[in-house]
Amino acid sequence: MVEAVEGLKIPSVLKEAMIYSLQAGGKRIRPILLLAVIRTFNQDTRLGLNTASALEMIHTYSLIHDDLPSMDDDDLRRGKPTNHKMFGEAAAILAGDGLLTYSFQLIAEDSALTTDQKVKLIALLARCAGPEGMVGGQVADIEGENKRLTVQELENIHVHKTGKLLIFSVLAGGIISGASENELELLERFSYHIGLAFQIQDDILDIEGSEEMIGKPVGSDESKHKSTYPSLLSMKGAKEKLQFHLDEALTALTSMPVESGLLAEIARLIVSRNH
Amino acid sequence: MVEAVEGLKIPSVLKEAMIYSLQAGGKRIRPILLLAVIRTFNQDTRLGLNTASALEMIHTYSLIHDDLPSMDDDDLRRGKPTNHKMFGEAAAILAGDGLLTYSFQLIAEDSALTTDQKVKLIALLARCAGPEGMVGGQVADIEGENKRLTVQELENIHVHKTGKLLIFSVLAGGIISGASENELELLERFSYHIGLAFQIQDDILDIEGSEEMIGKPVGSDESKHKSTYPSLLSMKGAKEKLQFHLDEALTALTSMPVESGLLAEIARLIVSRNH
Repeated sequence: MVEAVEGLKIPSVLKEAMIYSLQAGGKRIRPILLLAVIRTFNQDTRLGLNTASALEMIHTYSLIHDDLPSMDDDDLRRGKPTNHKMFGEAAAILAGDGLLTYSFQLIAEDSALTTDQKVKLIALLARCAGPEGMVGGQVADIEGENKRLTVQELENIHVHKTGKLLIFSVLAGGIISGASENELELLERFSYHIGLAFQIQDDILDIEGSEEMIGKPVGSDESKHKSTYPSLLSMKGAKEKLQFHLDEALTALTSMPVESGLLAEIARLIVSRNH
Repeated sequence: MVEAVEGLKIPSVLKEAMIYSLQAGGKRIRPILLLAVIRTFNQDTRLGLNTASALEMIHTYSLIHDDLPSMDDDDLRRGKPTNHKMFGEAAAILAGDGLLTYSFQLIAEDSALTTDQKVKLIALLARCAGPEGMVGGQVADIEGENKRLTVQELENIHVHKTGKLLIFSVLAGGIISGASENELELLERFSYHIGLAFQIQDDILDIEGSEEMIGKPVGSDESKHKSTYPSLLSMKGAKEKLQFHLDEALTALTSMPVESGLLAEIARLIVSRNH
């Protein structure tokens, strides 16, 4: 992923800013899910490497822009200074723009994929990351600040802001593996519930986690007056909802005609993670 | 173009911000070039409508981000308040992100094109708009402020910041028309010189134009201490360079096996425009 950016002939500050955030760590849950789906269908995971990189670049660009002063105004991300704190706002905005644009290039120029797969992946990625997906979710999230949302409104924000890209992660693995329409539907159901479980666990960790583990101050949602699952449902209600979505995700897997133990393990890992 | 965005199910402020800048006028030089190339090859211009919209969306996103306080900090664009002045910085950044991402979706989901054409167009668009193209050019432009650049450095900035997307406009028309490798090379040469001519005329108008015509204060480059062709070459030298690039563009056209009078007219129009 970083090697691809290293090889670009671009201004050095742009390259440094792009690589800085790509290297900032993170759980790499999206690439892991994509590659795990390919393994589940007994295909060569190398077929998914460029799409996995593209996915992590889109995720990284969204974090860089979300952290900007005019958005969440965060100084720290994963325990390190945010991109604009290191390189200034202009370079951070452009590093995000560059990662977003380059991610489409990576897929379009991937010699391991057929043209048909590339077009499907690009159309789906743009849908999941764009105005009807992640970008729309971020706008809704900003609009929802300092308001008490209903659970449905909160869920709608998360489905778009984080859920859609997780759905892409899983479906992309299916597209690359040549999964059937029925298998893609089950994968979509699995990933929809995993996405919500992931977000609920995020909200829980914001209260119960330690700053050292999660890389940002504990209670930062509350201090920003953001609605969260625990604030709307109580901690007990949030944990029940987490379990519900995990169960639904696992149920979708049991209907799959292939052995899906790896995906079930990853689902459980996402729910039990402490950072 | 606006109809496509109208139809999206997205937060209303995002939709308004995207449409506001798409409707802000502008010369539509990129879509015009794309469609003119398709006409030149005697193909149906309707084949290029979605790609032309995608192109104008990418151009519009770049203007929204360039105008931000941390970049050029412009309050006016085409005589109207800039996007962030109307909707705030966060919405402006996200409207830009949304337009950029959606432009790839428009091409990937265009039923008028073959999958092969879509992949070629998307790869080329990402190259021309991304880190190795427009985004890299914007970074270089910011880095070049308050410095006296050489003509070569200035040209390198313009080739990336504005030239690459003009090259895409012309080559996209060729790809959609099924142009040969040789024809694509001539089109690229034509568009390279048109791009530089366009930029030199921009610099000249910034000094000789009227505020009413160009939609921004006359002399704004000078007040920002930007190197321009007239500042480096004198007004006479800049005009000679403009004529040189126009001649080179027209020479490329004469080698084309198709009747290219329309493209020659557009080239002359770009050079003689007063806004």
